[in-house]
Amino acid sequence: MIVRPRPNWFRLLLVVRGSVLPMILPQLLLTLAFALVVTLLHGRVYVWKVSLTFVPFSLIGLTLAIFLGFRNNTSYARYWEARVLWGEVLNDTRSLARQSLTLVDRDSNSTVFVHRLIAFVHALRHQLRGTDPNTDLARWLSKDDLSRLKGARYKASAILLMADEWLRDRRLAGQLVAPLAQAMQVHMGHLSDALGGCERIASTPIPFTYGVIIHRTVYLYCLLLPFGLVDSIGAMTPVVITFIAYTFFALEALSSEIEEPFGTEPNDLPLDAMSEGIETSLLELLGERNLPTAPQPKNYVLT
Amino acid sequence: MIVRPRPNWFRLLLVVRGSVLPMILPQLLLTLAFALVVTLLHGRVYVWKVSLTFVPFSLIGLTLAIFLGFRNNTSYARYWEARVLWGEVLNDTRSLARQSLTLVDRDSNSTVFVHRLIAFVHALRHQLRGTDPNTDLARWLSKDDLSRLKGARYKASAILLMADEWLRDRRLAGQLVAPLAQAMQVHMGHLSDALGGCERIASTPIPFTYGVIIHRTVYLYCLLLPFGLVDSIGAMTPVVITFIAYTFFALEALSSEIEEPFGTEPNDLPLDAMSEGIETSLLELLGERNLPTAPQPKNYVLT
Amino acid sequence: MIVRPRPNWFRLLLVVRGSVLPMILPQLLLTLAFALVVTLLHGRVYVWKVSLTFVPFSLIGLTLAIFLGFRNNTSYARYWEARVLWGEVLNDTRSLARQSLTLVDRDSNSTVFVHRLIAFVHALRHQLRGTDPNTDLARWLSKDDLSRLKGARYKASAILLMADEWLRDRRLAGQLVAPLAQAMQVHMGHLSDALGGCERIASTPIPFTYGVIIHRTVYLYCLLLPFGLVDSIGAMTPVVITFIAYTFFALEALSSEIEEPFGTEPNDLPLDAMSEGIETSLLELLGERNLPTAPQPKNYVLT
Amino acid sequence: MIVRPRPNWFRLLLVVRGSVLPMILPQLLLTLAFALVVTLLHGRVYVWKVSLTFVPFSLIGLTLAIFLGFRNNTSYARYWEARVLWGEVLNDTRSLARQSLTLVDRDSNSTVFVHRLIAFVHALRHQLRGTDPNTDLARWLSKDDLSRLKGARYKASAILLMADEWLRDRRLAGQLVAPLAQAMQVHMGHLSDALGGCERIASTPIPFTYGVIIHRTVYLYCLLLPFGLVDSIGAMTPVVITFIAYTFFALEALSSEIEEPFGTEPNDLPLDAMSEGIETSLLELLGERNLPTAPQPKNYVLT
Amino acid sequence: MIVRPRPNWFRLLLVVRGSVLPMILPQLLLTLAFALVVTLLHGRVYVWKVSLTFVPFSLIGLTLAIFLGFRNNTSYARYWEARVLWGEVLNDTRSLARQSLTLVDRDSNSTVFVHRLIAFVHALRHQLRGTDPNTDLARWLSKDDLSRLKGARYKASAILLMADEWLRDRRLAGQLVAPLAQAMQVHMGHLSDALGGCERIASTPIPFTYGVIIHRTVYLYCLLLPFGLVDSIGAMTPVVITFIAYTFFALEALSSEIEEPFGTEPNDLPLDAMSEGIETSLLELLGERNLPTAPQPKNYVLT
Repeated sequence: MIVRPRPNWFRLLLVVRGSVLPMILPQLLLTLAFALVVTLLHGRVYVWKVSLTFVPFSLIGLTLAIFLGFRNNTSYARYWEARVLWGEVLNDTRSLARQSLTLVDRDSNSTVFVHRLIAFVHALRHQLRGTDPNTDLARWLSKDDLSRLKGARYKASAILLMADEWLRDRRLAGQLVAPLAQAMQVHMGHLSDALGGCERIASTPIPFTYGVIIHRTVYLYCLLLPFGLVDSIGAMTPVVITFIAYTFFALEALSSEIEEPFGTEPNDLPLDAMSEGIETSLLELLGERNLPTAPQPKNYVLT
Repeated sequence: MIVRPRPNWFRLLLVVRGSVLPMILPQLLLTLAFALVVTLLHGRVYVWKVSLTFVPFSLIGLTLAIFLGFRNNTSYARYWEARVLWGEVLNDTRSLARQSLTLVDRDSNSTVFVHRLIAFVHALRHQLRGTDPNTDLARWLSKDDLSRLKGARYKASAILLMADEWLRDRRLAGQLVAPLAQAMQVHMGHLSDALGGCERIASTPIPFTYGVIIHRTVYLYCLLLPFGLVDSIGAMTPVVITFIAYTFFALEALSSEIEEPFGTEPNDLPLDAMSEGIETSLLELLGERNLPTAPQPKNYVLT
Repeated sequence: MIVRPRPNWFRLLLVVRGSVLPMILPQLLLTLAFALVVTLLHGRVYVWKVSLTFVPFSLIGLTLAIFLGFRNNTSYARYWEARVLWGEVLNDTRSLARQSLTLVDRDSNSTVFVHRLIAFVHALRHQLRGTDPNTDLARWLSKDDLSRLKGARYKASAILLMADEWLRDRRLAGQLVAPLAQAMQVHMGHLSDALGGCERIASTPIPFTYGVIIHRTVYLYCLLLPFGLVDSIGAMTPVVITFIAYTFFALEALSSEIEEPFGTEPNDLPLDAMSEGIETSLLELLGERNLPTAPQPKNYVLT
Repeated sequence: MIVRPRPNWFRLLLVVRGSVLPMILPQLLLTLAFALVVTLLHGRVYVWKVSLTFVPFSLIGLTLAIFLGFRNNTSYARYWEARVLWGEVLNDTRSLARQSLTLVDRDSNSTVFVHRLIAFVHALRHQLRGTDPNTDLARWLSKDDLSRLKGARYKASAILLMADEWLRDRRLAGQLVAPLAQAMQVHMGHLSDALGGCERIASTPIPFTYGVIIHRTVYLYCLLLPFGLVDSIGAMTPVVITFIAYTFFALEALSSEIEEPFGTEPNDLPLDAMSEGIETSLLELLGERNLPTAPQPKNYVLT
Repeated sequence: MIVRPRPNWFRLLLVVRGSVLPMILPQLLLTLAFALVVTLLHGRVYVWKVSLTFVPFSLIGLTLAIFLGFRNNTSYARYWEARVLWGEVLNDTRSLARQSLTLVDRDSNSTVFVHRLIAFVHALRHQLRGTDPNTDLARWLSKDDLSRLKGARYKASAILLMADEWLRDRRLAGQLVAPLAQAMQVHMGHLSDALGGCERIASTPIPFTYGVIIHRTVYLYCLLLPFGLVDSIGAMTPVVITFIAYTFFALEALSSEIEEPFGTEPNDLPLDAMSEGIETSLLELLGERNLPTAPQPKNYVLT
């Protein structure tokens, strides 16, 4: 279990890491500068007074709320589904390891099978992040297995086939009867589903046009808003604009970050730590003890 | 994995392709023209002053938000369910290909079976898009199989039967024992479910009346709004009307586009690329290497 | 696949069929008449001026939005779940038909079994609509089977038992081994679930009190609103009231229509067409060709 | 199928039974009285004028909408999940009854098994309502079975074990082969899940604090609101307050009623009628005819 | 069944325990003090008048509603999923206990197996709360079993393996045939899923940045609001600010509490009582009677 310290209400106001502030600072400063200019000119462009009230912004809020709420909910749903899928990888590799120890008979040794499952997990992580899996795979697969993977585009899928071949060999050797082989196929199928589910999230973003419309609406809103406020709140306009723009930009930045949950930004899923956790849990089932302790979050962030 | 470049916040304001702007331009210009006329006449029709304030528009927002939010969420739910179903097609064809290699014994050759699964995928895509599947099917099915499909309305379902017949033949030949045949029936059933699920989405739209009511409400809203704004914001009326109308029309156009996810519009599902991806992944399991690389999106759009 | 023509944005404003306008016209005219009277009397009842502003209506919007949004979402969820359940009937009858052709050996003939599945579909439809199933059942069941159904209240459930008896007979005749009989029980169970799911939706409406509260709130709102608007928008009051009332009444009417998805109103599920589609698809699996084409929607409506 | 008459739009305004009005009348009258006093005093407490406008109420609406919407949605989700679970009880007892007739061979008689399933349903209902199950159980269980249940706290679970013992006896007598016994275990497991699901809903309410916060906020809101309205709408204040308070109290009362769906209030689940329906359906599968007809709702309410 | 007394509408206003008031009192008093100062100075800072109206707060409500609603819904979804997972632990341990009594033949004694299941439940609870499981485990496991757990980080997973070893031993002893062993693997897999699901919720909080942004926005909002209200409602400002701040802080505190459902705060899941309930239910299936009664809630709270 990862112990997560929660800052109290006062420290929560001051924390920097994990905040999206650095990411949205440029746009925020531009917005502030523009609001300052509008305030100094009392809403005039040359001699022409831009006559705006708060009403249009109240009306535009209708569609903006739909867009922003949708974007946020959908992004989080992707993030959480990705997390659930990785949870299933843990559950099903554990179930398979357990079954390989209790359903396969006559002095079977599950080490090769469990190592292939661990290799599957690492291959999945590298595939999702577009990084090179070879170092990790070499720790868990034999040379023969590694050479079979050469040139394969879907390495995780190929390793799943190898794990299944171990089961077939046990079955043909009379160590695993058909009904129990069938019970293990359930979890093999789940791993295939989890793999495909991760690929789905990674390859299918929220339709691109949503981002375009939201982005334009938010910027136009923040650009026009100073004209709508300057007559009623005067000098407070830049403060209020910055406050409102902060919440808009922060919501957009955060949605955009968790929309692609397999990346390496602070709010993305800690695939490194999760892979390591699965590895440890599977090795423990093989009887190994004194395994490395779980990685700890730094500044409330885990990579 | 498809690498998706994300434009930064500034370029996102200017992108054209993938935007729905071209699609809604005519209505937008009409709305702008009408708002200009109302502004020039100071809200008068002949000598009669149309006395409106923002209040009715604020009240109408109640039902409008429900309608638009519902339409958007439901359309996206259809889009995403369609994507999930295609993901299941990948998962289950992969599982079946893997099982045909590990559960069927005594020198079985899975090529015919896997080719039938590939044919199933192409038949499904053509059925959903209403296009002619014959060229694609001819690449993967024998002449006998093709002739059996003649006159069939549900070709994908018929190909699934053929795949199952291959399994039956293996079973009758003693190469596949009953409990393992049962394990493969699980995934055959899933493919049947995915097929039926896609047919369901394609044949059952959101109840037509929703579209009618939303459409009328939005247009009446945009038509009356200039009268409600011209007294308070004067010359800015056309700008604001166009802005508000843009978000309404864009939301409606986008919802309408993704509501039917199997089409060929920019925000629809890239069925071509997805079919090709499944094909490649299945062939790789058969041991083939040097397969064509995955198709890349152009201007953030994949067909 | 059913090809659905979509009217363009202009024709969508004029369409009549599929609109709920005819259904809500009486209430709408009453509301308009009342608003006209209030406007002519400048909000006075005898000599007493009813002093209202828009504020109460803005505040009441809070709960009204919760009620209306809830009612709409829940009604649609019922509609869509009903559609999904009918989709499962298609998927599982197809899977069973396919399995009866590939898992049952030694010159088995699946015709009787598949005909019983078709009879199940028709019995389900008639049960949900409260219509007489005998004509349809007589097309697909033997006289013996029909006589067994006499006096049965749950005919669909009884036909499912008959289908299962065919499987039992095959098993006892040595044509179907136990593990494969088990594989078919999976889909028999799904059919039982789909049947029960449809019965659940048909017999359990949204708690009645929701409708009562929403109905009263909406009518009281529309009755009081003219007093709240007449001082600020004067002669435009009846126009605005009619517009607002239209969206309220339309939302209520549409929710009420799709809340009971098994009826025969324009926005209900096309059970006739769907039963026919399942029938065709099952017969095709038996090898029949030249089957009747799918029914086409008229004025965007399918019965 | 239960035929539900729907009152038309006019009668819906007048219906009393099924309305929550009687339940909230005391609070409503208190609120009205308070609003009358405030109106008569023109918002003064002694000589001190309470200066309030609508603005605070508009702002407080933000959190109030979140709380009330959440409470309502969650309560209904509990209600509907409870209904789905009882639907599963119907589906799975039906499937088990059907399987006991077709999968168990050699002159087996399913009566004892099906009667135990019926006893399970009644035991579940009584457990959820905290009523005495003995009369109902005595109708369906033997004396031996009844004596085994003495002192048992989880009677439904114990009856499920008895049903499973019947299956074991059939298996040991050679009337049920292992793979088919396995097929029936699927539905036995589902019944266990449905039982546990009902227990979960019955024993875990929505966190208590939600109710406390919502309750306080609603009452404070209704207490302060007259001061905020009296200056602008004068004599109409009590009317408007009563209207707004009605929707708040009704929403709270209704949410609170369906939050615990297993009770005996008008909007709770009709467990009596549902148990009887399952009983009838199971007996019909055993071949019994002329069973009692389904109970009918009175005043739109079914117990 | 746990009987939950519900306080009536009047007592609900006064209850203290279960309320979050004590937790948010410091911040609430600070906010009140600040509002008092602003009111006394009539919104002036030195000589400079802070010119604010309610408009900015109305506009900021847009994003604030999205953030707060999202946080609340997501926290509750986590809470409820955690509850569902513990419900599955009950369901599947019950199913396994039942199956160990009916599927394992020839004088098998299930006591050891059921005790291991009970140990699994306690190990899971202690793992989730980070407490020492040894006392509880010693009640249900043999010394040999306990020594095997030494140094294991994932104790619940290890105990699941031990339970499975009991099944393997029965199978190797000829007391459990393979197809029935397979039926039990279904529930063993579910337990593995429930274990992994709880670990997922415990180790993956809502992305930290949400909390940071919401916290800052809420505090800035409450800090600026007095300036926006003092001109229109004067002396009532502190009352209103405290009211609004109460709902904000309470919503935040409650969300934060149920976000981590495995803790020991008043609104967290009563894992102690739930573990005891599972224990009792399993022992009852073994035939034990006169078990301890279920724990009762105190002041509406169960630990």
